[in-house]
Amino acid sequence: MSAPAGAPRVGFWFEFASTYSYPAAMRIESEACAKGVTVLWRPFLLGPIFAAQGMADSPFNLHPAKGRHMWRDLERICAAHGLPFTRAPVFPARSLLATRVALLGQDRPWGPAFVRAVFRRGHGEGADIAAPEVIADALREAGETPALLEAAGTPETKDALRAQVAEADRLGIFGAPSFVVGEELFWGQDRLETALDWARGEG
Amino acid sequence: MSAPAGAPRVGFWFEFASTYSYPAAMRIESEACAKGVTVLWRPFLLGPIFAAQGMADSPFNLHPAKGRHMWRDLERICAAHGLPFTRAPVFPARSLLATRVALLGQDRPWGPAFVRAVFRRGHGEGADIAAPEVIADALREAGETPALLEAAGTPETKDALRAQVAEADRLGIFGAPSFVVGEELFWGQDRLETALDWARGEG
Repeated sequence: MSAPAGAPRVGFWFEFASTYSYPAAMRIESEACAKGVTVLWRPFLLGPIFAAQGMADSPFNLHPAKGRHMWRDLERICAAHGLPFTRAPVFPARSLLATRVALLGQDRPWGPAFVRAVFRRGHGEGADIAAPEVIADALREAGETPALLEAAGTPETKDALRAQVAEADRLGIFGAPSFVVGEELFWGQDRLETALDWARGEG
Repeated sequence: MSAPAGAPRVGFWFEFASTYSYPAAMRIESEACAKGVTVLWRPFLLGPIFAAQGMADSPFNLHPAKGRHMWRDLERICAAHGLPFTRAPVFPARSLLATRVALLGQDRPWGPAFVRAVFRRGHGEGADIAAPEVIADALREAGETPALLEAAGTPETKDALRAQVAEADRLGIFGAPSFVVGEELFWGQDRLETALDWARGEG
Protein backbone atom coordinates (compact mmCIF):
# COMPACT_ATOMS: atom_id res chain seq x y z
CA MET A 1 0.00 0.00 0.00
CA SER A 2 2.95 2.35 -0.42
CA ALA A 3 2.20 5.56 -2.31
CA PRO A 4 4.47 7.46 -4.68
CA ALA A 5 6.66 9.95 -2.82
CA GLY A 6 4.78 13.21 -2.46
CA ALA A 7 1.39 11.62 -3.23
CA PRO A 8 -1.34 12.92 -0.96
CA ARG A 9 -2.03 10.64 1.97
CA VAL A 10 -4.26 10.58 5.02
CA GLY A 11 -3.74 8.67 8.25
CA PHE A 12 -7.00 7.00 9.21
CA TRP A 13 -7.00 6.33 12.95
CA PHE A 14 -9.83 4.08 13.99
CA GLU A 15 -10.99 1.91 16.88
CA PHE A 16 -13.18 -1.14 16.27
CA ALA A 17 -15.33 -0.37 19.31
CA SER A 18 -15.99 3.16 18.06
CA THR A 19 -19.39 3.44 16.45
CA TYR A 20 -18.51 6.42 14.25
CA SER A 21 -15.36 4.62 13.07
CA TYR A 22 -17.66 2.11 11.35
CA PRO A 23 -19.14 4.32 8.60
CA ALA A 24 -15.74 6.00 8.20
CA ALA A 25 -14.02 2.66 7.63
CA MET A 26 -16.67 1.53 5.14
CA ARG A 27 -16.52 4.79 3.18
CA ILE A 28 -12.90 5.91 3.24
CA GLU A 29 -11.32 3.80 0.50
CA SER A 30 -13.75 4.74 -2.27
CA GLU A 31 -13.81 8.41 -1.23
CA ALA A 32 -10.01 8.56 -1.01
CA CYS A 33 -9.54 6.71 -4.27
CA ALA A 34 -11.87 9.10 -6.07
CA LYS A 35 -9.75 12.00 -4.81
CA GLY A 36 -6.40 10.35 -5.48
CA VAL A 37 -5.47 10.13 -1.80
CA THR A 38 -3.71 7.12 -0.25
CA VAL A 39 -5.08 5.86 3.06
CA LEU A 40 -2.75 4.81 5.85
CA TRP A 41 -4.88 2.52 8.02
CA ARG A 42 -4.01 3.01 11.68
CA PRO A 43 -5.91 0.86 14.21
CA PHE A 44 -5.53 1.92 17.83
CA LEU A 45 -7.22 1.62 21.21
CA LEU A 46 -9.28 4.41 22.72
CA GLY A 47 -9.31 2.88 26.21
CA PRO A 48 -5.82 4.11 27.22
CA ILE A 49 -6.51 7.50 25.57
CA PHE A 50 -9.77 7.94 27.48
CA ALA A 51 -8.11 6.75 30.69
CA ALA A 52 -5.42 9.42 30.31
CA GLN A 53 -8.25 11.96 30.02
CA GLY A 54 -9.67 10.65 33.31
CA MET A 55 -12.51 8.66 31.74
CA ALA A 56 -13.02 5.05 32.79
CA ASP A 57 -15.67 4.41 30.15
CA SER A 58 -16.88 5.73 26.79
CA PRO A 59 -18.27 9.29 26.97
CA PHE A 60 -21.41 7.82 25.37
CA ASN A 61 -21.92 5.70 28.48
CA LEU A 62 -20.78 8.37 30.93
CA HIS A 63 -23.21 10.93 29.46
CA PRO A 64 -26.55 9.27 28.65
CA ALA A 65 -27.97 12.17 26.59
CA LYS A 66 -24.85 12.12 24.44
CA GLY A 67 -25.18 8.35 24.12
CA ARG A 68 -28.84 8.52 23.06
CA HIS A 69 -27.97 11.04 20.36
CA MET A 70 -25.05 8.94 19.14
CA TRP A 71 -27.13 5.76 18.66
CA ARG A 72 -29.85 7.59 16.77
CA ASP A 73 -27.29 9.57 14.79
CA LEU A 74 -25.43 6.42 13.80
CA GLU A 75 -28.70 4.86 12.66
CA ARG A 76 -29.37 7.90 10.45
CA ILE A 77 -25.81 7.95 9.06
CA CYS A 78 -25.84 4.24 8.25
CA ALA A 79 -29.22 4.59 6.54
CA ALA A 80 -27.92 7.51 4.49
CA HIS A 81 -24.93 5.47 3.31
CA GLY A 82 -26.81 2.19 2.84
CA LEU A 83 -24.88 0.43 5.61
CA PRO A 84 -26.44 -2.25 7.81
CA PHE A 85 -26.55 -1.38 11.49
CA THR A 86 -27.19 -3.64 14.49
CA ARG A 87 -26.30 -2.64 18.00
CA ALA A 88 -24.04 -5.25 19.62
CA PRO A 89 -25.00 -6.45 23.12
CA VAL A 90 -21.99 -4.80 24.77
CA PHE A 91 -20.75 -1.27 24.23
CA PRO A 92 -17.93 -0.55 23.94
CA ALA A 93 -16.92 -3.87 22.40
CA ARG A 94 -13.71 -5.51 23.57
CA SER A 95 -11.62 -4.76 20.53
CA LEU A 96 -8.14 -5.81 21.64
CA LEU A 97 -7.81 -9.00 19.57
CA ALA A 98 -9.22 -7.42 16.40
CA THR A 99 -6.93 -4.43 16.81
CA ARG A 100 -3.81 -6.55 17.18
CA VAL A 101 -4.68 -8.48 14.01
CA ALA A 102 -5.46 -5.25 12.15
CA LEU A 103 -2.07 -3.91 13.21
CA LEU A 104 -0.40 -6.91 11.57
CA GLY A 105 -2.25 -6.07 8.35
CA GLN A 106 -2.22 -2.29 8.39
CA ASP A 107 0.28 -1.96 5.55
CA ARG A 108 -0.58 -5.25 3.85
CA PRO A 109 -2.95 -5.78 0.94
CA TRP A 110 -5.42 -7.75 3.10
CA GLY A 111 -5.60 -5.07 5.82
CA PRO A 112 -8.46 -2.87 4.59
CA ALA A 113 -10.68 -5.87 3.68
CA PHE A 114 -10.08 -7.34 7.14
CA VAL A 115 -10.92 -4.05 8.84
CA ARG A 116 -14.16 -3.74 6.91
CA ALA A 117 -15.04 -7.36 7.63
CA VAL A 118 -14.63 -6.77 11.37
CA PHE A 119 -16.61 -3.52 11.34
CA ARG A 120 -19.43 -5.09 9.36
CA ARG A 121 -19.64 -7.97 11.83
CA GLY A 122 -19.42 -5.74 14.91
CA HIS A 123 -21.61 -2.78 14.01
CA GLY A 124 -23.48 -4.05 10.95
CA GLU A 125 -24.49 -7.44 12.37
CA GLY A 126 -24.05 -6.91 16.10
CA ALA A 127 -21.54 -9.77 16.49
CA ASP A 128 -19.15 -10.01 19.44
CA ILE A 129 -15.79 -9.08 17.96
CA ALA A 130 -14.03 -10.28 21.12
CA ALA A 131 -14.72 -13.86 19.97
CA PRO A 132 -11.70 -15.39 18.17
CA GLU A 133 -13.98 -17.23 15.72
CA VAL A 134 -15.48 -13.93 14.57
CA ILE A 135 -12.00 -12.56 13.88
CA ALA A 136 -10.98 -15.81 12.19
CA ASP A 137 -14.00 -15.46 9.90
CA ALA A 138 -13.05 -11.87 9.08
CA LEU A 139 -9.52 -13.04 8.23
CA ARG A 140 -10.92 -15.68 5.89
CA GLU A 141 -13.13 -13.09 4.24
CA ALA A 142 -10.02 -10.97 3.64
CA GLY A 143 -8.28 -13.97 2.05
CA GLU A 144 -5.95 -14.60 4.97
CA THR A 145 -5.35 -17.54 7.25
CA PRO A 146 -6.80 -17.62 10.78
CA ALA A 147 -3.32 -18.72 11.86
CA LEU A 148 -2.58 -14.99 12.06
CA LEU A 149 -4.50 -15.00 15.35
CA GLU A 150 -1.43 -16.55 16.94
CA ALA A 151 0.86 -13.82 15.68
CA ALA A 152 -1.54 -11.33 17.23
CA GLY A 153 -0.67 -12.66 20.68
CA THR A 154 3.11 -12.36 20.49
CA PRO A 155 5.01 -9.89 22.67
CA GLU A 156 6.17 -8.13 19.47
CA THR A 157 2.59 -7.42 18.39
CA LYS A 158 1.59 -6.29 21.87
CA ASP A 159 4.54 -3.91 21.98
CA ALA A 160 3.77 -2.62 18.50
CA LEU A 161 0.20 -1.83 19.53
CA ARG A 162 1.40 -0.01 22.64
CA ALA A 163 3.71 2.04 20.42
CA GLN A 164 0.83 2.79 18.04
CA VAL A 165 -1.36 4.06 20.89
CA ALA A 166 1.54 6.21 22.09
CA GLU A 167 1.85 7.61 18.58
CA ALA A 168 -1.88 8.42 18.55
CA ASP A 169 -1.41 10.32 21.78
CA ARG A 170 1.61 12.14 20.39
CA LEU A 171 -0.46 13.20 17.38
CA GLY A 172 -3.02 14.76 19.72
CA ILE A 173 -5.68 12.14 18.99
CA PHE A 174 -8.41 12.07 21.65
CA GLY A 175 -11.24 10.24 19.89
CA ALA A 176 -12.08 8.11 16.87
CA PRO A 177 -12.20 8.18 14.00
CA SER A 178 -9.47 10.74 13.46
CA PHE A 179 -7.80 11.74 10.22
CA VAL A 180 -4.24 13.01 10.14
CA VAL A 181 -2.74 14.95 7.25
CA GLY A 182 0.78 16.11 8.05
CA GLU A 183 0.34 18.05 11.29
CA GLU A 184 -3.40 18.55 10.79
CA LEU A 185 -5.84 16.54 12.87
CA PHE A 186 -9.51 16.10 11.96
CA TRP A 187 -11.83 14.36 14.40
CA GLY A 188 -15.10 12.72 13.45
CA GLN A 189 -16.42 10.63 10.59
CA ASP A 190 -18.17 13.60 9.02
CA ARG A 191 -14.78 15.30 8.55
CA LEU A 192 -13.60 12.62 6.13
CA GLU A 193 -14.19 14.72 3.02
CA THR A 194 -12.56 17.78 4.60
CA ALA A 195 -9.48 15.76 5.53
CA LEU A 196 -9.20 14.31 2.01
CA ASP A 197 -9.48 17.79 0.50
CA TRP A 198 -6.79 18.96 2.88
CA ALA A 199 -4.53 16.10 1.77
CA ARG A 200 -5.01 17.23 -1.83
CA GLY A 201 -3.93 20.72 -0.83
CA GLU A 202 -7.43 22.13 -1.23
CA GLY A 203 -8.12 22.58 2.51
CA MET B 1 -40.70 35.08 12.09
CA SER B 2 -43.75 32.81 12.07
CA ALA B 3 -43.85 30.24 9.27
CA PRO B 4 -46.88 28.96 7.37
CA ALA B 5 -48.46 25.96 9.10
CA GLY B 6 -46.71 22.82 7.94
CA ALA B 7 -43.72 24.71 6.54
CA PRO B 8 -40.45 22.96 7.33
CA ARG B 9 -38.70 24.40 10.35
CA VAL B 10 -35.59 23.74 12.38
CA GLY B 11 -34.92 24.70 15.99
CA PHE B 12 -31.43 26.18 16.21
CA TRP B 13 -30.16 25.83 19.78
CA PHE B 14 -27.03 27.85 20.36
CA GLU B 15 -24.85 29.20 23.18
CA PHE B 16 -22.85 32.40 22.70
CA ALA B 17 -19.85 30.94 24.54
CA SER B 18 -19.82 27.91 22.23
CA THR B 19 -17.18 28.23 19.57
CA TYR B 20 -18.88 25.92 17.06
CA SER B 21 -22.16 27.82 17.53
CA TYR B 22 -20.45 30.80 15.88
CA PRO B 23 -20.08 29.47 12.31
CA ALA B 24 -23.50 27.81 12.64
CA ALA B 25 -25.14 31.11 13.59
CA MET B 26 -23.43 32.98 10.77
CA ARG B 27 -24.38 30.36 8.16
CA ILE B 28 -27.82 29.10 9.13
CA GLU B 29 -30.11 31.79 7.76
CA SER B 30 -28.81 31.75 4.21
CA GLU B 31 -28.58 27.94 4.13
CA ALA B 32 -32.09 27.55 5.55
CA CYS B 33 -33.53 30.20 3.25
CA ALA B 34 -32.06 28.48 0.20
CA LYS B 35 -33.76 25.25 1.27
CA GLY B 36 -37.08 26.87 2.24
CA VAL B 37 -36.69 26.05 5.93
CA THR B 38 -37.69 28.45 8.73
CA VAL B 39 -35.22 28.84 11.59
CA LEU B 40 -36.46 29.00 15.19
CA TRP B 41 -33.61 30.72 17.05
CA ARG B 42 -33.24 29.24 20.53
CA PRO B 43 -30.49 30.70 22.75
CA PHE B 44 -29.69 28.70 25.86
CA LEU B 45 -26.95 28.15 28.41
CA LEU B 46 -24.63 25.15 28.34
CA GLY B 47 -23.38 25.71 31.92
CA PRO B 48 -26.38 24.08 33.65
CA ILE B 49 -26.44 21.30 31.03
CA PHE B 50 -22.76 20.50 31.54
CA ALA B 51 -23.19 20.71 35.33
CA ALA B 52 -25.98 18.12 35.16
CA GLN B 53 -23.53 15.88 33.27
CA GLY B 54 -21.04 16.33 36.11
CA MET B 55 -18.80 18.79 34.27
CA ALA B 56 -17.79 21.99 36.02
CA ASP B 57 -16.16 23.46 32.91
CA SER B 58 -16.21 23.13 29.13
CA PRO B 59 -15.01 19.73 27.87
CA PHE B 60 -12.52 21.72 25.77
CA ASN B 61 -10.90 22.95 28.98
CA LEU B 62 -11.28 19.67 30.85
CA HIS B 63 -9.61 17.71 28.02
CA PRO B 64 -6.64 19.67 26.63
CA ALA B 65 -6.13 17.51 23.50
CA LYS B 66 -9.81 17.99 22.62
CA GLY B 67 -9.42 21.71 23.23
CA ARG B 68 -6.34 22.01 21.03
CA HIS B 69 -8.16 20.27 18.18
CA MET B 70 -11.21 22.49 18.61
CA TRP B 71 -9.26 25.77 18.35
CA ARG B 72 -7.43 24.64 15.24
CA ASP B 73 -10.60 23.15 13.76
CA LEU B 74 -12.52 26.36 14.35
CA GLU B 75 -9.77 28.31 12.64
CA ARG B 76 -10.02 26.01 9.60
CA ILE B 77 -13.82 26.18 9.52
CA CYS B 78 -13.89 29.96 9.78
CA ALA B 79 -11.30 30.24 7.01
CA ALA B 80 -13.34 27.92 4.80
CA HIS B 81 -16.45 30.07 5.30
CA GLY B 82 -14.67 33.43 5.12
CA LEU B 83 -15.49 34.27 8.74
CA PRO B 84 -13.16 36.33 10.93
CA PHE B 85 -11.86 34.52 13.97
CA THR B 86 -10.15 35.93 17.06
CA ARG B 87 -9.86 33.96 20.25
CA ALA B 88 -11.31 35.93 23.19
CA PRO B 89 -9.17 36.21 26.34
CA VAL B 90 -11.55 34.05 28.41
CA PHE B 91 -13.07 30.72 27.40
CA PRO B 92 -15.85 29.99 27.88
CA ALA B 93 -17.13 33.55 27.71
CA ARG B 94 -19.70 34.66 30.30
CA SER B 95 -22.72 34.66 28.05
CA LEU B 96 -25.58 35.24 30.49
CA LEU B 97 -26.42 38.83 29.57
CA ALA B 98 -26.23 38.25 25.82
CA THR B 99 -28.39 35.15 26.16
CA ARG B 100 -31.11 36.95 28.10
CA VAL B 101 -31.25 39.68 25.47
CA ALA B 102 -31.30 37.12 22.66
CA LEU B 103 -34.20 35.39 24.38
CA LEU B 104 -36.18 38.63 24.26
CA GLY B 105 -35.54 38.78 20.53
CA GLN B 106 -35.73 35.12 19.57
CA ASP B 107 -39.06 35.47 17.74
CA ARG B 108 -38.67 39.13 16.79
CA PRO B 109 -37.38 40.52 13.50
CA TRP B 110 -34.24 41.94 15.15
CA GLY B 111 -33.29 38.65 16.84
CA PRO B 112 -31.10 36.99 14.19
CA ALA B 113 -29.19 40.20 13.42
CA PHE B 114 -28.53 40.68 17.14
CA VAL B 115 -27.32 37.10 17.52
CA ARG B 116 -24.92 37.44 14.61
CA ALA B 117 -23.69 40.80 15.93
CA VAL B 118 -22.86 39.21 19.30
CA PHE B 119 -21.17 36.18 17.75
CA ARG B 120 -19.09 38.35 15.43
CA ARG B 121 -17.93 40.46 18.34
CA GLY B 122 -17.22 37.49 20.62
CA HIS B 123 -15.60 34.96 18.28
CA GLY B 124 -14.81 37.10 15.24
CA GLU B 125 -13.20 40.03 17.07
CA GLY B 126 -12.41 38.50 20.45
CA ALA B 127 -14.48 41.05 22.41
CA ASP B 128 -15.72 40.37 25.94
CA ILE B 129 -19.46 39.71 25.49
CA ALA B 130 -19.98 39.95 29.25
CA ALA B 131 -19.51 43.72 28.91
CA PRO B 132 -22.90 45.53 28.72
CA GLU B 133 -21.49 48.07 26.24
CA VAL B 134 -20.62 45.26 23.81
CA ILE B 135 -24.19 43.98 23.98
CA ALA B 136 -25.56 47.52 23.66
CA ASP B 137 -23.50 47.93 20.48
CA ALA B 138 -24.86 44.67 19.12
CA LEU B 139 -28.40 45.85 19.82
CA ARG B 140 -27.74 49.10 17.95
CA GLU B 141 -26.33 47.13 15.02
CA ALA B 142 -29.56 45.10 14.96
CA GLY B 143 -31.58 48.34 14.90
CA GLU B 144 -32.76 48.06 18.49
CA THR B 145 -32.42 50.25 21.55
CA PRO B 146 -29.88 49.45 24.27
CA ALA B 147 -32.74 50.07 26.71
CA LEU B 148 -33.56 46.38 26.15
CA LEU B 149 -30.65 45.60 28.47
CA GLU B 150 -32.92 46.54 31.35
CA ALA B 151 -35.64 44.14 30.24
CA ALA B 152 -32.99 41.44 30.18
CA GLY B 153 -32.60 41.76 33.93
CA THR B 154 -36.23 41.34 34.97
CA PRO B 155 -37.42 38.28 36.92
CA GLU B 156 -39.65 37.40 33.94
CA THR B 157 -36.68 37.18 31.58
CA LYS B 158 -34.64 35.21 34.08
CA ASP B 159 -37.50 32.74 34.54
CA ALA B 160 -37.99 32.47 30.79
CA LEU B 161 -34.32 31.58 30.31
CA ARG B 162 -34.51 28.95 33.04
CA ALA B 163 -37.52 27.46 31.25
CA GLN B 164 -35.64 27.52 27.94
CA VAL B 165 -32.68 25.63 29.44
CA ALA B 166 -35.13 23.10 30.93
CA GLU B 167 -36.66 22.68 27.47
CA ALA B 168 -33.19 22.08 25.98
CA ASP B 169 -32.64 19.37 28.56
CA ARG B 170 -36.06 17.83 27.82
CA LEU B 171 -35.16 17.72 24.13
CA GLY B 172 -32.04 15.72 24.96
CA ILE B 173 -29.65 18.55 24.11
CA PHE B 174 -26.19 18.03 25.63
CA GLY B 175 -24.03 20.39 23.58
CA ALA B 176 -24.14 23.30 21.15
CA PRO B 177 -25.00 24.00 18.50
CA SER B 178 -27.87 21.55 18.23
CA PHE B 179 -30.57 21.39 15.59
CA VAL B 180 -34.01 20.02 16.38
CA VAL B 181 -36.48 18.86 13.73
CA GLY B 182 -39.58 17.37 15.35
CA GLU B 183 -38.18 14.65 17.59
CA GLU B 184 -34.86 14.47 15.75
CA LEU B 185 -31.76 15.95 17.34
CA PHE B 186 -28.59 16.80 15.42
CA TRP B 187 -25.51 17.91 17.32
CA GLY B 188 -22.67 19.91 15.80
CA GLN B 189 -22.29 22.75 13.34
CA ASP B 190 -21.29 20.39 10.54
CA ARG B 191 -24.72 18.72 10.79
CA LEU B 192 -26.52 21.90 9.72
CA GLU B 193 -27.10 20.75 6.14
CA THR B 194 -28.26 17.29 7.30
CA ALA B 195 -30.77 18.86 9.71
CA LEU B 196 -32.12 21.17 7.02
CA ASP B 197 -32.53 18.26 4.61
CA TRP B 198 -34.33 16.35 7.37
CA ALA B 199 -36.69 19.31 7.87
CA ARG B 200 -37.51 19.19 4.16
CA GLY B 201 -38.36 15.52 4.48
CA GLU B 202 -35.26 14.42 2.59
CA GLY B 203 -33.42 13.05 5.61
